[in-house]
Amino acid sequence: MKIKYELLKTCGKARVGKLHTNHGDVDTPIFMPVGTQATVKTLSPEELKEVHSGIILSNTYHLWLRPGEDIVAEAGGLHQFMNYDGPILTDCGGYQVFSLVKNKKKDIMEEGVRFKSHLNGESLFLTPELSIQIQNKLDSDIAMSFDECPPASASYEYMKNSVERTLRWAERGKKVHSNPNQSLFGIVQGGPHEDLRKYSAVETVKMNFDGYSIGGVANDDESKEDMYHAIEYAIPYLPEDKPRYLMGVGDPIDIIEGVIRGIDMFDCVHPTRLARHGHAFTRDGKINLKNAKFKRDFTPLEEGCDCYACKHYTKAYIRHLIVADETFGARLLSIHNIRFLIRLTEELREAIREENILQYREDFIKRYLGE
Amino acid sequence: MKIKYELLKTCGKARVGKLHTNHGDVDTPIFMPVGTQATVKTLSPEELKEVHSGIILSNTYHLWLRPGEDIVAEAGGLHQFMNYDGPILTDCGGYQVFSLVKNKKKDIMEEGVRFKSHLNGESLFLTPELSIQIQNKLDSDIAMSFDECPPASASYEYMKNSVERTLRWAERGKKVHSNPNQSLFGIVQGGPHEDLRKYSAVETVKMNFDGYSIGGVANDDESKEDMYHAIEYAIPYLPEDKPRYLMGVGDPIDIIEGVIRGIDMFDCVHPTRLARHGHAFTRDGKINLKNAKFKRDFTPLEEGCDCYACKHYTKAYIRHLIVADETFGARLLSIHNIRFLIRLTEELREAIREENILQYREDFIKRYLGE
Repeated sequence: MKIKYELLKTCGKARVGKLHTNHGDVDTPIFMPVGTQATVKTLSPEELKEVHSGIILSNTYHLWLRPGEDIVAEAGGLHQFMNYDGPILTDCGGYQVFSLVKNKKKDIMEEGVRFKSHLNGESLFLTPELSIQIQNKLDSDIAMSFDECPPASASYEYMKNSVERTLRWAERGKKVHSNPNQSLFGIVQGGPHEDLRKYSAVETVKMNFDGYSIGGVANDDESKEDMYHAIEYAIPYLPEDKPRYLMGVGDPIDIIEGVIRGIDMFDCVHPTRLARHGHAFTRDGKINLKNAKFKRDFTPLEEGCDCYACKHYTKAYIRHLIVADETFGARLLSIHNIRFLIRLTEELREAIREENILQYREDFIKRYLGE
Repeated sequence: MKIKYELLKTCGKARVGKLHTNHGDVDTPIFMPVGTQATVKTLSPEELKEVHSGIILSNTYHLWLRPGEDIVAEAGGLHQFMNYDGPILTDCGGYQVFSLVKNKKKDIMEEGVRFKSHLNGESLFLTPELSIQIQNKLDSDIAMSFDECPPASASYEYMKNSVERTLRWAERGKKVHSNPNQSLFGIVQGGPHEDLRKYSAVETVKMNFDGYSIGGVANDDESKEDMYHAIEYAIPYLPEDKPRYLMGVGDPIDIIEGVIRGIDMFDCVHPTRLARHGHAFTRDGKINLKNAKFKRDFTPLEEGCDCYACKHYTKAYIRHLIVADETFGARLLSIHNIRFLIRLTEELREAIREENILQYREDFIKRYLGE
């Protein structure tokens, strides 16, 4: 069975909905933690449930290289392989090809992309068909079409050709998609250009995907304004009865801005990567636990937070773990940071229901940025 | 209140007992996981409970350097600092001084030991009094007397002088020990020499400690035979109504041999260190998950094991995590390896109760070594 999106309430362009999947229902807007290599770094599936993760994301490119999609398929699919019975979304591998191997030569051809493995330099060739075939075998709940992610600085001409190629790739991928229990999303590209975003959205929607994502907004050289514009350019052309996913975005303010512009789903490595570097989200901004001022701070990371880390541990202890390079520190901060973003989406849903999302944004940003 | 040891059953020299502590009762013989820096690497306190850890060990030397015993005391002691409400034993720092800084100059004087921090080379001076004072502040359930751990290869003359100094250090430490809720153990040294082990045991017991440990058996240059002999030389002189702890030993066969010779408590970093290197204990010997033969092995680490890792994950998945350098792999293997040793002690208790411990040893070793 495919996923089904149910629109429950709107407030301006912001929407509250429910995503019905074969692995349970998910309230949207939602933040999806990233489990690149079939594990959300440092965490167990039980801990993901405890922070109310609705969907998690896993990376096709990484699983293709290690352990290989055939081994995952033999294990009974990704859910069984990693012991996660909630919904899983797999990306298409495109972003990884363009980001992980960005300093190496790659050939983008009509047929696909030739590039070198970031692990061992081996020459690899990924095509739209192969990306979908791998995802079919991984048996995620939601697969993504294979796309190109050009940098925002690419010329208009390049971007236009790229958008057209991504449309042809989407069509080719859709043709070979053969897993009846897996939904397939189309990806809107077009960089900072209004006409290209519109063109990409309109043409992608014509192919009738199970959901739509907006890609190419998490590049290093992208400004926040570019990102917000990209969403605004695309959203009017996306159908109301399908979920909308903003790829690679996990900054709290960006999530709020995305939701206000009509986005339902977000993902990012941000919360777990910050955790490994000793940083924690709080309502009053990010804090760096390595800071000496936390040495004797016997209060939780954030007063009022309901996560496991905040219920049982102090900043002083977590600081000690981080300074001593103990992975339990990264684990506690990962739990907290993911829970922080999920709570944010819970509050956004509530604000939409109560029709005060603009006030929520104002209050949140004022406190978060300390202005 | 001090700990109290209750002897319940013997079989030869092997004993089943119960250790009553301020943080719960513990069945002995028991294996104690090591939480060097106030955390058992990769694991949560809940996971330690789940594998039925009775007591955990933490390292005075490491906590002295980071975060410092005053911060732990301000947090309310080690239990509260690390959120572990079971019993905790702290070592004295002696072994770390002699092992972690073994390639650096250190001056062993009557007053104490001058050496350089393994973290930053800072000059440090640890004395018997300071070791006990630090442990008093850490507020562990069981503290250890400060001792010297000379290598087994030291001359008889050196060893004799060292044993005498360790006795004087034990007395000095006992004098300053002032935490009424903390028990204090004496340490028997003497290397491979029967007369020195006897002398050390007899003189240490005269000081009337709450328990006794046998040290200096986990040095790199110690043979298994030396270790077994060291136990045999000391045990006859230790009182029946006090617990006996063999320091730094965690090999399954050594645990069995120790129990047969009258040991009640063991500790070792072995199970968690092996885990981080991708190794798992099984009844049929240690396995290395990096081995390619486990790529498609969709069975648990060990059939019949009741640990979280074995209940939910396959060798193929854990292998993938280890190869991909994901810490959840080390976490699953740590859970399994600790549970393996704790189950071993559970079975040893049962074998003692049923008076068939020699048969148990024979069966275990035959299968473990594949003979």
